[in-house]
Amino acid sequence: MWMKPVSTIVQHALKTGSVRATSTILAGEPTEPKVVTSEIPGPKSKQLIGDLDSVTQSSSVQFFADYEKSIGNYITDVDGNSYLDVFMQISSMPLGYNHPDMLEVFRNEENLKALVNRPALGSFPNEFWPQKLKDVLMSISPGLDNVMTMMCGSCSNENAYKCLFMTYRKHQRGEKIEFSDEELSSCMINKPPGAPNLSLLSFKGAFHGRTMGTLSTTHSKAIHKIDIPAFDWPIAPFPKYKYPLEEHIRENKQEDEKCLVRIEELFEEFNKKGSPVAGVIIEPIQSEGGDNEASPEFFQQLQRTSKKYGAGFLIDEVQTGGGATGKMWCHEHFNLDSPPDVMTFSKKMLTGGFYHNLDHKPSQSYRIYNTWMGDPSKLLLLEAFLKVVKKQNLLHQVNIVGDKLKSGLHECEKEFPIINSVRGRGTFLAVNVETTALRDKIVGNLKKKGVLTGGSGDQAIRFRPSLTLQEHHVDILLDRFRKVLKELK
Amino acid sequence: MWMKPVSTIVQHALKTGSVRATSTILAGEPTEPKVVTSEIPGPKSKQLIGDLDSVTQSSSVQFFADYEKSIGNYITDVDGNSYLDVFMQISSMPLGYNHPDMLEVFRNEENLKALVNRPALGSFPNEFWPQKLKDVLMSISPGLDNVMTMMCGSCSNENAYKCLFMTYRKHQRGEKIEFSDEELSSCMINKPPGAPNLSLLSFKGAFHGRTMGTLSTTHSKAIHKIDIPAFDWPIAPFPKYKYPLEEHIRENKQEDEKCLVRIEELFEEFNKKGSPVAGVIIEPIQSEGGDNEASPEFFQQLQRTSKKYGAGFLIDEVQTGGGATGKMWCHEHFNLDSPPDVMTFSKKMLTGGFYHNLDHKPSQSYRIYNTWMGDPSKLLLLEAFLKVVKKQNLLHQVNIVGDKLKSGLHECEKEFPIINSVRGRGTFLAVNVETTALRDKIVGNLKKKGVLTGGSGDQAIRFRPSLTLQEHHVDILLDRFRKVLKELK
Repeated sequence: MWMKPVSTIVQHALKTGSVRATSTILAGEPTEPKVVTSEIPGPKSKQLIGDLDSVTQSSSVQFFADYEKSIGNYITDVDGNSYLDVFMQISSMPLGYNHPDMLEVFRNEENLKALVNRPALGSFPNEFWPQKLKDVLMSISPGLDNVMTMMCGSCSNENAYKCLFMTYRKHQRGEKIEFSDEELSSCMINKPPGAPNLSLLSFKGAFHGRTMGTLSTTHSKAIHKIDIPAFDWPIAPFPKYKYPLEEHIRENKQEDEKCLVRIEELFEEFNKKGSPVAGVIIEPIQSEGGDNEASPEFFQQLQRTSKKYGAGFLIDEVQTGGGATGKMWCHEHFNLDSPPDVMTFSKKMLTGGFYHNLDHKPSQSYRIYNTWMGDPSKLLLLEAFLKVVKKQNLLHQVNIVGDKLKSGLHECEKEFPIINSVRGRGTFLAVNVETTALRDKIVGNLKKKGVLTGGSGDQAIRFRPSLTLQEHHVDILLDRFRKVLKELK
Repeated sequence: MWMKPVSTIVQHALKTGSVRATSTILAGEPTEPKVVTSEIPGPKSKQLIGDLDSVTQSSSVQFFADYEKSIGNYITDVDGNSYLDVFMQISSMPLGYNHPDMLEVFRNEENLKALVNRPALGSFPNEFWPQKLKDVLMSISPGLDNVMTMMCGSCSNENAYKCLFMTYRKHQRGEKIEFSDEELSSCMINKPPGAPNLSLLSFKGAFHGRTMGTLSTTHSKAIHKIDIPAFDWPIAPFPKYKYPLEEHIRENKQEDEKCLVRIEELFEEFNKKGSPVAGVIIEPIQSEGGDNEASPEFFQQLQRTSKKYGAGFLIDEVQTGGGATGKMWCHEHFNLDSPPDVMTFSKKMLTGGFYHNLDHKPSQSYRIYNTWMGDPSKLLLLEAFLKVVKKQNLLHQVNIVGDKLKSGLHECEKEFPIINSVRGRGTFLAVNVETTALRDKIVGNLKKKGVLTGGSGDQAIRFRPSLTLQEHHVDILLDRFRKVLKELK
């Protein structure tokens, strides 16, 4: 059955002034950005930055926000500036600010008690936990049988990596399922065979987190890594494409092949070195390292190569997951032979965690475990979010709004040669700027015009709106983007 | 000014039947444990464990709890059993269940919005953030100037470790504060000098978390570590004392000295190996590895040795912090020359994080950073908790109740030779049992009598009640403990 796109309904509602909280536009959302201070951060934010710096490192703060006044797609700062927010707390607010259905969650007394009586979920879970895991997380599983909740993206990846190692060793042991005494004693002093020489293959430009295991697989920016010891693991090239894709099919295919050849070499090299690759870790779109895409065929082949070498295949959907690519999971665009072995999530999903197949289910208690094992209150928020996605058909809307934004950006790149390589899926989009300095200037000038975006890698501007972005927001965004580009000419 | 101990007030209130929500006993708390099922987990929990296992690893689950019915020091399970809970979600519920002041936090609309509009705190913090950090976290700082919030204990330690490495390298660089091109490029491929060969010294029996950096410093149980690659870092012996302490002063002092000599040797060995020790990581009481204590003199000397070798000194108060030892931080019992360089916390503190001195403040943005950088809603809960601590003088109460429990345990160890080595501070107490099998049996039998405790290490039973434990709870606990021990005779 064809459904009238939600965004059309809303456009109509906007015109007729009949917008209600049940539409994807929240009552009270500003109709356009408003910047009232000559500088950003404004004076009040500046003073608060000083205050904050007296007790913590604060030099990354852009401004202080007023989360009581922020609404829908607009964030308001303490100086009274209101920005159209297409960055959304680094891609992590799925429905924008103060969504009434999210606020409602903890007005329910049972949910409030679940929030305040935070259990050690691995030992004393809430009565509702099994059913909620099924109704909420398993309802959007990417074809995987099990799920574990965690606190954040880094923690999800750390624990998922451990599952990869454990499963690789399980396969090595074969029939012999017991640990040897030598393994049990050597692991306690960080030595093989108990703490084995195994590696994970990651990609140049990747970002998987900042804890020490994940940081060894992160290669986006030196400032994230410098001075921190790391595991000596294989790092493969990630395809670098020429845009527009349809004009560079042959070169990009060659690029895929070149990378895949190097990946096989790395498997062989690390096998020979005595540090076999237990798993391959990859983002569907490199989201911090520059919004770098690879083709479905690349991912298909990479999964086959992983399988060939007995390595687990982990897709990190921490930034891409939750619907912004037009599907719940970005890798669903890739038509893989089978689901990945493990898939991690966080950010828009509100809870961290990972799905995994049964081969990657820990064989004993306490191997993947920690005090909290996530937080039931975050699953309750996710439940509310997913209900809105379904009720308002938001994935459909993301595709419509994303198409409009992408077309607009393509027009901009024709008009302004300073930008190029428009790319992405759904509203999860990016465009490159010739230099880092110019990119930073454009992001800064957009902010001065009331539009909040982010940089990624050295050259990209990334768009990470919530799922409630509408077509009229895109008009505002493109209008301000054009103005900024014109002023640079 | 001498204040009448709160527990006395409460005892009086209990006798006169005038208990109010403002006392440390919550209205509606059971007067004694009640176990109605012949087995634990009961039939309803068993069925839920089956349900849960179909979607996630569930073999560590003890029972499913009813968090609507649980109240104060009593946890109720789905089968209607009510336990006196002196384990409290692995030492993490500071005021027990459904404390009215905690439930009140998110009935406040501003706080509810802070919960639902979860910001990227490193970039767009809430207006209240600087002041709340000062009023809440800095009000209980262990003499350190700065604080960073994180999500959990592992994450707090991971990030604190990074600060140790960064500061060690800063000192090595001396005047030259810029990173070299070689450092910047080599760190991106996980090689020195950018990803340097530095190590952290940890202790046998230690537990600092399960992510790959912290897991390399965890040495409590093989099942936590097996199959996971680890950094080859120095592991020092932790003192093993004979109890009672006052009867073994000379041997225990020799034990301290032996360990301290070995620690210096390890510093020298790892210096020679080209992997200098950048930091020393220690718990004030080894809380997972067996409730192992070391003397104030040991900690004082360890801090001096760390300083001598230019290594940062990190105290991990994840389990010991938050008041249960009778002081807000356990290491405050040690009379150190100066505060530790870094001190991590989580669990009872509701938010993770770490305090650090200015030498350990990251010199640039984005070196210690992640999407959420903690969660403002957890700081709001901590604020409510600390207000209750102050209002009800709970640290004083912990000391009174802890003394009573410790005396009672000492009496038990005289009566029942199967147990020994009663130890600990405040209500953060433990006792050893001759064998692991017997220890597990006692913990299980206590549960059947309605008292929830935990094991630690191979032989210890640990007590980790909330700060609201009262003297009459201790009577119940000791009564059930005696009964269990008698039945084993």
